[in-house]
Amino acid sequence: MRLPYSAPVHPPLNTDSRILLGPGPSNVDPRVLQAMAASMVGHLDPLFLETMDRIQDLLRYAFQSQNPLTIPVSGTGSAAMETALANLIEPGDPVLICVNGFFGERMVDIARRYQGDVRTLQRPWAEVFTLEEIEAELKARPAKVVAIVHGETSTGALQPLEGMAAMVRGHGGLLVVDAVATLGGVPMLVDELGIDVCYTGSQKCLSSPPGLGPITLGPRAAEVLAGRKSPVGSWYLDLTGVQKYWGKERTYHHTAPISANFALYEALRLLAEEGLEASWTRHRRCAELLWEGVADLDLTLLIPEPYRMVTVTTVRVPDGVNEAQVRGRLREEFKIEIAGGLGELKGKVWRIGLMGHSAQEQNVAALLGALERILHPA
Amino acid sequence: MRLPYSAPVHPPLNTDSRILLGPGPSNVDPRVLQAMAASMVGHLDPLFLETMDRIQDLLRYAFQSQNPLTIPVSGTGSAAMETALANLIEPGDPVLICVNGFFGERMVDIARRYQGDVRTLQRPWAEVFTLEEIEAELKARPAKVVAIVHGETSTGALQPLEGMAAMVRGHGGLLVVDAVATLGGVPMLVDELGIDVCYTGSQKCLSSPPGLGPITLGPRAAEVLAGRKSPVGSWYLDLTGVQKYWGKERTYHHTAPISANFALYEALRLLAEEGLEASWTRHRRCAELLWEGVADLDLTLLIPEPYRMVTVTTVRVPDGVNEAQVRGRLREEFKIEIAGGLGELKGKVWRIGLMGHSAQEQNVAALLGALERILHPA
Repeated sequence: MRLPYSAPVHPPLNTDSRILLGPGPSNVDPRVLQAMAASMVGHLDPLFLETMDRIQDLLRYAFQSQNPLTIPVSGTGSAAMETALANLIEPGDPVLICVNGFFGERMVDIARRYQGDVRTLQRPWAEVFTLEEIEAELKARPAKVVAIVHGETSTGALQPLEGMAAMVRGHGGLLVVDAVATLGGVPMLVDELGIDVCYTGSQKCLSSPPGLGPITLGPRAAEVLAGRKSPVGSWYLDLTGVQKYWGKERTYHHTAPISANFALYEALRLLAEEGLEASWTRHRRCAELLWEGVADLDLTLLIPEPYRMVTVTTVRVPDGVNEAQVRGRLREEFKIEIAGGLGELKGKVWRIGLMGHSAQEQNVAALLGALERILHPA
Repeated sequence: MRLPYSAPVHPPLNTDSRILLGPGPSNVDPRVLQAMAASMVGHLDPLFLETMDRIQDLLRYAFQSQNPLTIPVSGTGSAAMETALANLIEPGDPVLICVNGFFGERMVDIARRYQGDVRTLQRPWAEVFTLEEIEAELKARPAKVVAIVHGETSTGALQPLEGMAAMVRGHGGLLVVDAVATLGGVPMLVDELGIDVCYTGSQKCLSSPPGLGPITLGPRAAEVLAGRKSPVGSWYLDLTGVQKYWGKERTYHHTAPISANFALYEALRLLAEEGLEASWTRHRRCAELLWEGVADLDLTLLIPEPYRMVTVTTVRVPDGVNEAQVRGRLREEFKIEIAGGLGELKGKVWRIGLMGHSAQEQNVAALLGALERILHPA
């Protein structure tokens, strides 16, 4: 047989090492990369099933929860966001989404696709919400689901969550919290805070490669899921099916991304070995070092304390500076990645992530040293 | 702070090598595993963007298509199935699905969730469809989307596709073909066959780890997508968003699974290096060796030629043999994985995959030798 199109020739994978200080992915510990390269096994192999159980155990530690329904969704953090909303929302359900940045807007887009009766509580980008304003909104009209972002990586603002779940529950709702850029890097105690659904991404403070989206559902959320009248709108993200594979039944749903789960297992093991408190302390120490160094460079931060994220810092681009050019030089001359602004902050800020394995003093020093040479050449 | 739950202690990743002869995942070439362990880079890093372009080029070769919209979905083969249906179907659209096994049924489930007006053409499991019966169905009532499985891994039947796309087009429909278990292992010429949408999984004949679902959309399908009146029901799988990241715009949609794409790149490069024709020949040679050997063991095959899949063979379990016990012994004593039956074939067949890097004579010899010792001990 003669093929219509002949084989293209491409060189072996072209890679290079980077200091990853954007809002994710973070650098990955070599031990985690090694686990990623382990020989393939089947998705029903006893060796893999045992690893699945351990991943769930370690995820419960990371979330500080005892929720049985705690699993890594087979997609990125955004897939976990969609899983949270798709599994709770039935057509016509009232949904309240707190929007103060890019990822709040993404939640609105997703919730509408699942035909929620979606309304938003808006705050200017870079601000956070008070408990009182959310409660006033729920008093005016209850919602089945209230969704909020813990760390808005588009702005660098950290949303306080104390008392929120109890208040939402008092009005008959479920609280969904996006912890994509915070889990593992700053305190997040899912059970103690009473959060109904919380999710994250594998590639930020957990420092595993991107591709998995850990999620946990509390008892009230699990009950809502079990009592749905209509099937979940997405088959792939339907936790009623997925949980039978991760649960005792081991019923095939879809083939788990084996290597990604191997990597997540090792990444979570390293987190447990260090301990959450030590990890939180390390993240704060590195962030404070960055904040001091940035001030020394006459740069200012977008978000004031105490609402400043520890894991992603937004730095204002000074007048007359081409922000993309600075990022390009950081990448090309110093092999350091930081990110620009998203949405309405495009061109106005740099976003500097210090998450997971990237949160190390040596990386902060490298970034500050490089920035000094670019912004204030001798 | 005192944590509510203390850190669990688990041992380093417990792995072992296996000969993977189930219906996927297949064994992964060490060069591909090595690529998986490459240092992390960002999802907008020029190095990764270059790799993305090359992956698309290599995928077009694998699909034998020039479709611009050819990308790996950031999920498994089932996510690619859902992507195909979700992107084409709007609420109320007439959809015809050909069902002769487990994965045809899955398509029906998915298409209903996207509110298609779904009807099915049914064949007993293990049979295939004729062009005439599908055409008769479309004459009776046209469909916007006709979906069919090329290789039904639940039964081992291979669906002939010659003339089907033209016939479907003649009735105003789009043809969606599931090539999850066939692409790369048996001839599949997407452009020459005129297929509108075709998708596969990374972990079968392409022999990359599970977690990506390559898909290609032809010009007619891309036009239908661009002309949708309603947004795609799933945000994560919405190709109108995803294609802006894979296309020239490079607009962030979700963080691509970097390592999985690195692995896919190397796996596709190995396929291009071997050449599709050589790969097809190797798959057939191994399958024929298996078929002869199985006959020598007095076992019979479920599917007669010429509808027998080359990549997954279903073998009838002889009366009086405990099929799960045989699989357990293969796994424990010989570290060889094969699979049991799914759905209505549960307990009745073994499913033996010879796909990608697993399709090697030495693996067939190992399986036959092991089966002989288990089924006919001296």
